[in-house]
Amino acid sequence: MKREDIIASVKQQMPERRWTHTEGVMETAVILAKRYGEDPAKAELAAILHDVCKYWRVDEQARVIRENGLPQDLLGYDKELWHAHAGAWVAEHQYGVKDEAVLDAIRYHTSGRERMTKLDKIVCLADYMEPGRDFPGVHNIREIAEHSLEKALIAGFDGTIRFLLEKGKRIYPLTLFARNGLIEELERQEEHYDTNRH
Amino acid sequence: MKREDIIASVKQQMPERRWTHTEGVMETAVILAKRYGEDPAKAELAAILHDVCKYWRVDEQARVIRENGLPQDLLGYDKELWHAHAGAWVAEHQYGVKDEAVLDAIRYHTSGRERMTKLDKIVCLADYMEPGRDFPGVHNIREIAEHSLEKALIAGFDGTIRFLLEKGKRIYPLTLFARNGLIEELERQEEHYDTNRH
Repeated sequence: MKREDIIASVKQQMPERRWTHTEGVMETAVILAKRYGEDPAKAELAAILHDVCKYWRVDEQARVIRENGLPQDLLGYDKELWHAHAGAWVAEHQYGVKDEAVLDAIRYHTSGRERMTKLDKIVCLADYMEPGRDFPGVHNIREIAEHSLEKALIAGFDGTIRFLLEKGKRIYPLTLFARNGLIEELERQEEHYDTNRH
Repeated sequence: MKREDIIASVKQQMPERRWTHTEGVMETAVILAKRYGEDPAKAELAAILHDVCKYWRVDEQARVIRENGLPQDLLGYDKELWHAHAGAWVAEHQYGVKDEAVLDAIRYHTSGRERMTKLDKIVCLADYMEPGRDFPGVHNIREIAEHSLEKALIAGFDGTIRFLLEKGKRIYPLTLFARNGLIEELERQEEHYDTNRH
C-alpha cells in the first residue's frame, strides 16, 4: 500500500485531534531518525500506523489480541497497552507492512521492551514528546532528547511509572525491563568511554 | 539451634545499631503476626535472621550466591539484594532452619516476590516500618498497617520504586511483580466483597 493511501485510511479511524497527534509523532520520529542515524522512512511508517487501533472499540482490540495468538497476558493489563499490539497486527495484515523492525516499533511503542532497537526508541520517544504533548516534564524530555535517545526515554518511562504509582495501578513488566535495559546500555556506553580514555 | 543461641550468634555479626534494627523488626513482626493471624514464632525467627549477612563483606555474600546455586542474576542487581538470598542460605545451612516458609520470608524480605505469603508480607513490612525507621512516608505506612498488610506493603514498595527512579537506578523485577501481585490481591478481595453484597 502506498504512503498516501495508508495515511488516508488511518486518518479515517480516529478523531481529528488524534490525527494531529499522529502527524506530530511522524514529524518528531523523522527528526529523531535523522539525528540518531536511523532510516527516516521506517520511522515515519511506524509513526503513521502506531495508533491505528487506538480509537477502535476496546472489545475489537481485545478480539484481535485473542484471535491471533498475541500475548494473552496483555488482556490482564491496562487497556492502554492493547492498541499497540493490535496495531502491529493490523499494520501487517491490513496494510501489508512486512518489515519486522517497523512492526516491532508499533508493537512496543507504549510499553517499550527489554532490548529496544533504535527504531523502537525513536517511535516510543516521539510519542512522548511530539509538539502537541503538554504534560509536566515534557520540556525536560525534549531537552534531553537533543543529546541522548536513551536518557530522554528513561525520563519518559520514569514519568509513566510515577503516574502509575500515584494511581495505585499495576506497572507493565515490559516498561520496567525497558527502563532497566536502557540504564544498562548507558552503563556500558560509559564503561566503553572510560576504557577508551585510559 | 535454640532461639537464644541464634540471637547471640546473629548479634555478633553486625554493628550494634543494626542489631537494634533487628530487635525492632522482631517486635514489629510479632505484632503484625498476631494482628493478621500468622504464627508469631515463625515471624520472629525470620526477623532474627533476616539481616544475618547484611554486614558480611560483599564478596563473601557474592560467594554464597555463586557457589550454592542461588539466582545468579542477583549479582547484576543492587548489592542490597544479596544479603537476603545469602541470608536464607545461611539460615538453613548454618542455623539449621528447615521451615521453607521462614526461609522464603528471609529470602524475599528486601525484594518481595510475585505471590507473597502472609509471612513474607509480615517480615518485609516489619523491615520497612520497625520503630527505628525514620524516612519520609514511614508514618503513613505504619498507619495503613493498622488495617491492611497489602496496602501498607504497596506503600512501602512505592517508596522504594520512587527512590530508585530518583537515583536513576534499575528496579529489581521481583519488586514490581510483588507490587503488581498485591494490587491484584486487593482487586480480588474487593470483587469478593462486591459479590457477597449482591
